[in-house]
Amino acid sequence: MRIRILGVGMGPQHVTPEVADALRGCDYVLAVEKTSDDRLLAARRTIAERFGVEVVAVPDPDRDRADPADYPRAVAAWHEARVAAYEQVLRAREGTVAFLVWGDPSLYDSTIRLVEQLAQRLPIEYDVLPGVSAPQLLAARHRIVLHAVGEPVHVTTARRLRGAIAAGQKNVCVMLTGSLDLAGLEDWSIWWGANLGTDSERLVAGRVGDVLPVLLAGRDEAKAAAGWVMDVYLLRAPS
Amino acid sequence: MRIRILGVGMGPQHVTPEVADALRGCDYVLAVEKTSDDRLLAARRTIAERFGVEVVAVPDPDRDRADPADYPRAVAAWHEARVAAYEQVLRAREGTVAFLVWGDPSLYDSTIRLVEQLAQRLPIEYDVLPGVSAPQLLAARHRIVLHAVGEPVHVTTARRLRGAIAAGQKNVCVMLTGSLDLAGLEDWSIWWGANLGTDSERLVAGRVGDVLPVLLAGRDEAKAAAGWVMDVYLLRAPS
Repeated sequence: MRIRILGVGMGPQHVTPEVADALRGCDYVLAVEKTSDDRLLAARRTIAERFGVEVVAVPDPDRDRADPADYPRAVAAWHEARVAAYEQVLRAREGTVAFLVWGDPSLYDSTIRLVEQLAQRLPIEYDVLPGVSAPQLLAARHRIVLHAVGEPVHVTTARRLRGAIAAGQKNVCVMLTGSLDLAGLEDWSIWWGANLGTDSERLVAGRVGDVLPVLLAGRDEAKAAAGWVMDVYLLRAPS
Repeated sequence: MRIRILGVGMGPQHVTPEVADALRGCDYVLAVEKTSDDRLLAARRTIAERFGVEVVAVPDPDRDRADPADYPRAVAAWHEARVAAYEQVLRAREGTVAFLVWGDPSLYDSTIRLVEQLAQRLPIEYDVLPGVSAPQLLAARHRIVLHAVGEPVHVTTARRLRGAIAAGQKNVCVMLTGSLDLAGLEDWSIWWGANLGTDSERLVAGRVGDVLPVLLAGRDEAKAAAGWVMDVYLLRAPS
């Protein structure tokens, strides 16, 4: 049994030739389906249909978001439920299976870890092909490099942003944003994007203290237009 | 006058549909040519020819590598010479121009900064399209996520690696490697790749103290096979 983990960037415009070839050789795409209106599944269907590949959707297990203090355990339980759902399909259907990962599988995505768990239960060979990630599209839209010349970029989650700043990070790319708390960072520069690569994309850049109202309005607009909002941003300390 | 900065990943297999469309609409590709055997130019020619676009190559200005203490100034002088060379071509030739960036323009690449300088001298409109970056291909080849669940990844240069570790970073992606000095990091884990995406690709993963000899041999092999070596790696502290 073969699984291919395919990064598809932020839509069909980012599907690389090697991912397209891999997808053409797959028998079906395995994906989760959220109980409410699932636009990400719809986006995966669009890509799969373009290459004539069927999508098999399994219901997304509930994720316990009540206990943020034990984030790793909540994620682990949710992964376990997803793995069980996938395993059921894989045992029932032959063939080469694709997982389509929005963005790139190497950043804040669980697919590789899920497939590692599946590979402990079933005789699976798997590989990974990269896709364009959200920080790269953010940088392209703002026409920036993610760091100053020769300096680092620290990529982290909103949950860990304050810790990174306290530890002296001056150039931070933030993913998995959830809410947007930038209090005390008014003099920092921000390059922000929501729903990148889609029709509801919004971009804002400037000094945090100056642009925050516009940014929050843009976030609301993106959510109203798409029914969901996913954003990413780069924060840089004043020089 | 229009310039398009196009990320092409690690070769034709990564050229996204939107980059392909952009390239088809360009009149020529502008690129530098190194005095010795220039394989990166050859790779750019391969991509440009696939889309029927001419490559205009200008000699790469000498870069002063003698004074690493003043790295930003050395880079600035080299940029200035490149900008002057590009400006000469742009003044002589009409049309929409593409720069093909190996990997992605947002990480340790000078093209955006060069074009910003050109835009101060000439009436230029420009945009940027993302490509697959080396850290993403590294992660895909090793089938890993670049960070532990919910944790950060610190992306930096070999020059700044020691400083990052001293500051407490436990998960560091290193680019612009030059030489490879991992003394004292024997118990860390490494996922390493050289000449990723090419015929001379080499991969090594494991505990630094165990795999370093194999890794250094792989580096020499990659250099012997290709005539050049570019590597990237992820280092993770023992848990």
